[in-house]
Amino acid sequence: MAISGTTDEAAIRQRINRWLEALRAMDLEGVMSLYAPGIVSFDIIPPLRRSGARVKEKNWMDAFAMYQRPLGYEMRDLTLTMGDDVAFAHSLNRVSGTLKNGNSTDFWLRWTACFRKIDGNWLVTHDHVSVPFDPASGRALLNLES
Amino acid sequence: MAISGTTDEAAIRQRINRWLEALRAMDLEGVMSLYAPGIVSFDIIPPLRRSGARVKEKNWMDAFAMYQRPLGYEMRDLTLTMGDDVAFAHSLNRVSGTLKNGNSTDFWLRWTACFRKIDGNWLVTHDHVSVPFDPASGRALLNLES
Repeated sequence: MAISGTTDEAAIRQRINRWLEALRAMDLEGVMSLYAPGIVSFDIIPPLRRSGARVKEKNWMDAFAMYQRPLGYEMRDLTLTMGDDVAFAHSLNRVSGTLKNGNSTDFWLRWTACFRKIDGNWLVTHDHVSVPFDPASGRALLNLES
Repeated sequence: MAISGTTDEAAIRQRINRWLEALRAMDLEGVMSLYAPGIVSFDIIPPLRRSGARVKEKNWMDAFAMYQRPLGYEMRDLTLTMGDDVAFAHSLNRVSGTLKNGNSTDFWLRWTACFRKIDGNWLVTHDHVSVPFDPASGRALLNLES
């Protein structure tokens, strides 16, 4: 049990590391390999909910189309909670890069990823990505520091 | 195993239902009973991350202080993924109510709650609550419909 747990955690950490490398390289296939086909996403931009990896893929294609390579994507304070075949992860992620229009972006977001072990592979079946907002102004807060 | 799984899911659903009743009644103790002492929260308003139930409690006290009783809180499309001692839930929740200043609020948020079974009780050790934002205007979107 202890050995399996350790192996499972190592497997998820390896998957996340590969996903980060794929994100930075804007490698769509690599990015998508983290997700289960039926993933339900609560993403940083509308709609409220996206269902299915195909919709997620379109979203990443649109995002990658906006940025110059490479994308800056840093993960801080990754915390994993492991069960036998269900696990969850959360972290603070910094997105930085130069848009094709020349503007630059640099902000921290909150990342929650919920995993199931499916046919021996840990896949994200639900994720939630956001920034908080200021209730007084109604503005999303893209200037918070981790 | 199947019986235990069903019992565990029923236990979490019962906890969530009681939490919803406590929210509507602004029963702080009832609301807090869902959370583990070391909960890490990614909340709808700043900061990026809150750690610990005491900080969460202060946050709920502040929220309850703003609203007239009872608070409207509806949960839609609750989905549970159960493991032996780790589980996660997500839903779309509608918050509606009248503020003490007379203004009313009515918006949908995304709710993700990650559970661990601790000493036989399912407690939320991580939650993530948000609305998406419009990248063009930078505004949080409080007008989306489920």
